[in-house]
Amino acid sequence: MTPIEIALEEAAAAAARGEVPVGAVVTDEQGQVLARAGNEVEARHDAAAHAEMLVLREAAARLGSPRLTGCTLTVTLEPCPMCAQAASFFRVRRIVFGAYDPKGGGVDHGARIFAASSCHHVPEVVGGVREQDCAALLRHFFAGRR
Amino acid sequence: MTPIEIALEEAAAAAARGEVPVGAVVTDEQGQVLARAGNEVEARHDAAAHAEMLVLREAAARLGSPRLTGCTLTVTLEPCPMCAQAASFFRVRRIVFGAYDPKGGGVDHGARIFAASSCHHVPEVVGGVREQDCAALLRHFFAGRR
Repeated sequence: MTPIEIALEEAAAAAARGEVPVGAVVTDEQGQVLARAGNEVEARHDAAAHAEMLVLREAAARLGSPRLTGCTLTVTLEPCPMCAQAASFFRVRRIVFGAYDPKGGGVDHGARIFAASSCHHVPEVVGGVREQDCAALLRHFFAGRR
Repeated sequence: MTPIEIALEEAAAAAARGEVPVGAVVTDEQGQVLARAGNEVEARHDAAAHAEMLVLREAAARLGSPRLTGCTLTVTLEPCPMCAQAASFFRVRRIVFGAYDPKGGGVDHGARIFAASSCHHVPEVVGGVREQDCAALLRHFFAGRR
């Protein structure tokens, strides 16, 4: 499975648990999976338990270093400002994301974290990967809640 | 002790552990301390283990809710974009901080998280409380490392 397929699988699993369906994975330079997770805000009573935060922290714990140099963060939705800033702090080399998020995103929208001159580490960013599949999961989830 | 005094105590304790001296505390509407912590980036190998993230998560875990409605986050340094966004997600009512951070801050500087039209919850912000004491801790810490 490719990283975005793993992230999609985690997003679907999050939806099944009643969480907003966003999934993420951190892979190293060899493409090996260091951490994978879906959103766990509800389960952990933790508003910061976005999929990205969980995988960044878990990957760093696994490497025993707060620096994920050379690693890629792949996520089904454009990261929010919190997660974008965290990815910069963890020094990830690359962020790949699926659906764009004009309302909550912080990479290509809103706070545009990496565009700030004060941002010390700016990862390479690739957006729109498997965009339709990633967006469809979110759309179905919110449609089912109305 | 006032919240900023508790935060200063946590910042000093962080410095003694070799961590960047930033301390934070979450208090509820009655002023009761729900969580207090200093920066633990080095100890946890977690670039997201800023004092604010630790106390927000711990306070929410204690309340069994991802919403810290009515609560105040008090911290010795202007929160970075990650922590400012997290405070918004956790729905804190008020942020009180000590020193301003023109380089890394995300409240009055840089990404200015709460100024984005997409920011759903904007806490009340009071900056510059015990500013000199909070800044002095950071200054001494970095001077000692040179």
